[in-house]
Amino acid sequence: MTSEEIGQEVRQMGKQARAAAHALTKLSTEKKNAILLAMADAVMAREADILAANAKDLAAADELGLTAAMKDRLRLDHDRIAAMARGIRDVALLHDPTGEIIREWSRPNGLEFVKKRTPIGVIGIIFESRPNVTADAAVLCFKTGNATILRGGKEAIFSNRAIAAALQEGGAPAGLPDHSIQLIPFTDRESVRHLCEMDTYLDLIIPRGGASLIEAVVSMARMPVIKHYDGICHVFVDKDADPDMAEAITLNSKLQKPSVCNALETLLIHRDIASTFIPRIAGVLSSKKVEMHGDESFIQLAGVDEVIPATEEDWKTEYLDYILAIKVVDDLDAAIAHINHYGSHHTDSIVTTNADAAARFQLEVDSACVFWNCSTRFADGAEFGFGAEIGISTDKLHARGPMALEELCSYKYLVNGSGQVK
Amino acid sequence: MTSEEIGQEVRQMGKQARAAAHALTKLSTEKKNAILLAMADAVMAREADILAANAKDLAAADELGLTAAMKDRLRLDHDRIAAMARGIRDVALLHDPTGEIIREWSRPNGLEFVKKRTPIGVIGIIFESRPNVTADAAVLCFKTGNATILRGGKEAIFSNRAIAAALQEGGAPAGLPDHSIQLIPFTDRESVRHLCEMDTYLDLIIPRGGASLIEAVVSMARMPVIKHYDGICHVFVDKDADPDMAEAITLNSKLQKPSVCNALETLLIHRDIASTFIPRIAGVLSSKKVEMHGDESFIQLAGVDEVIPATEEDWKTEYLDYILAIKVVDDLDAAIAHINHYGSHHTDSIVTTNADAAARFQLEVDSACVFWNCSTRFADGAEFGFGAEIGISTDKLHARGPMALEELCSYKYLVNGSGQVK
Repeated sequence: MTSEEIGQEVRQMGKQARAAAHALTKLSTEKKNAILLAMADAVMAREADILAANAKDLAAADELGLTAAMKDRLRLDHDRIAAMARGIRDVALLHDPTGEIIREWSRPNGLEFVKKRTPIGVIGIIFESRPNVTADAAVLCFKTGNATILRGGKEAIFSNRAIAAALQEGGAPAGLPDHSIQLIPFTDRESVRHLCEMDTYLDLIIPRGGASLIEAVVSMARMPVIKHYDGICHVFVDKDADPDMAEAITLNSKLQKPSVCNALETLLIHRDIASTFIPRIAGVLSSKKVEMHGDESFIQLAGVDEVIPATEEDWKTEYLDYILAIKVVDDLDAAIAHINHYGSHHTDSIVTTNADAAARFQLEVDSACVFWNCSTRFADGAEFGFGAEIGISTDKLHARGPMALEELCSYKYLVNGSGQVK
Repeated sequence: MTSEEIGQEVRQMGKQARAAAHALTKLSTEKKNAILLAMADAVMAREADILAANAKDLAAADELGLTAAMKDRLRLDHDRIAAMARGIRDVALLHDPTGEIIREWSRPNGLEFVKKRTPIGVIGIIFESRPNVTADAAVLCFKTGNATILRGGKEAIFSNRAIAAALQEGGAPAGLPDHSIQLIPFTDRESVRHLCEMDTYLDLIIPRGGASLIEAVVSMARMPVIKHYDGICHVFVDKDADPDMAEAITLNSKLQKPSVCNALETLLIHRDIASTFIPRIAGVLSSKKVEMHGDESFIQLAGVDEVIPATEEDWKTEYLDYILAIKVVDDLDAAIAHINHYGSHHTDSIVTTNADAAARFQLEVDSACVFWNCSTRFADGAEFGFGAEIGISTDKLHARGPMALEELCSYKYLVNGSGQVK
């Protein structure tokens, strides 16, 4: 197909999605929840189809050059399909934020104002590898009355199609409006470009994937993009830290699940506590087989041989691995400056018994999540009590940090009068 | 200067703005208000300088091909400068939303969550003609703790420089952090491009100007853009409308100030009321010298000669003039479909005594402001009780409709623990 033909098909899907978005505004919460349960049933009923499709993707994985980790993310089995269906049922149980009154007031001229939460409209989701995103993202958007256009990677195209078909055909008899959930059948970059240019029909794009995908979307998109970039998360051990707590938080933040965006990547240590805290933490990290990339001060005090001298690059790196960059800073200001300069504005935590230091850290660190005396691993929609999340936004507009159902909504102003003119 | 040199200077301004944004987070509301009052005083004290600069711009206006209307927007005089200073003092009186706790809660593990309103950071404002935007936009952003990089058009460069100097030099002795308010000295499109690509330093761009400026920014920007596009506003006269009210709202929406974005552009009339309402409204519009572009049904019933047959183009046009497009629709659904298809999602009003029709209209019309029985002219931050506004957003993300101080803020999550790990 030519680029122009792909463009025509993508725009046709956009037009259909806009019509679906209008139909979705008219569904009650009860109706939406019934549709979600029907979708969950359909995912379970079609397990064999989905697994067969997934097997086709896995058969092509080597040819596409997928790594072992990528193949693991791609692979579905009974447990993962059951988890997908359970995830859909969980979304049915969540509070529906659409239609909520955010604020209401009146003016001296008698006009009555209502600020009301609404769906956003049509949301594009561009994602890679994990086929479960098809279901996760689509149902969160559906619960909030949004139509979705999904565009997954070619490595999961058969799986994505099978899951989308289960949602569409499972939801239809329960009243899912046509074209509420659409999957783009094209997997080349041209389809992404056409999607990014289609601002008439698409209100928002959420790219979920690596930096190069996000970069491409950011540079092409004409509509708002909510990015979920790297998590270069910091723990700052202040001079007034409780050393036991500092050790526990460091280890948990780094090691409880190193492959995720809220894992610790750079440890900052106040110079006044360095001489006692560094030998201790270096020993524990060494025993846990964590590769340490330390600055000169750290190396001098560590008392273990295997510390690698840190370079400028280390402060900017999201390892997602058993590697930790470590730096000694002169004071709180230096810690804040380092985090604001090198961090990714995701999640940073201070360990201190000093409330003033904590307050300054929380005021001045320019990140979505700024923690005091707890692990960075709590930066998560479920830990926040939000139920499901579609990701952790590293943007500052509209959604910052854990992005859940409320952030999948817009609002409108209803103004009621009795003939008022100006 | 080469494009590369302009890029370097713009990036330097970006870096300085980022540092200023950090300094701004530490200012108290009282301090910010004192700085605002000092800025207002400086604008008045420098009236002669500002008028001299404005005279230079006006002298070049013919050469630049400015229309009479553009020259009028460019022109400053004592009253306009006094209004600018008064506007700054009014902003000092407004409630400061930064630092507000939006929500707080705790979790069973003892973690305490605070969702707190913060400045956005660094905001770019790209604008045309009106030099008062320099002051209006900069002080609203400053009040909310944001640093600004302003880029005005070449037609107002001397005026903009003089006003920016008054704000900067007037604010400095009162404690305005360096580089909080910066004006780009270059007026060519290259500087806009560099600004749009500078997503390391710029958190948001707000273009204020014509469609071609907004288009250029949307296609180049790598950071979020909040657009203030056209207002193609509708009034729908339902079959159950009170004819007197429908006439008053139509006339006020169209005629009270035709040149603004919340003025009426297309009147929709329910077929069941057409035979009585059309002759009446056509007569009044004719007497008010409004040029009518009507569909066939309207022309048949209007009873006046001068109606121009409407074309497809009329439904998409923001006239900002004594011109009104008029269409007869079969029912409420047709009115909603017309507005969602041709409108600009700005402001639309239904006139009806039927609460069910109003509720459906307000639910299904996908616009920022959906009114019932009042003039579209109330779509305005001041009328909403928001104090000042930076514009009316036609976007759905972050800010929709009148965009005031609260929408110039982001938020962050502060999480306080006592050593919790996962």
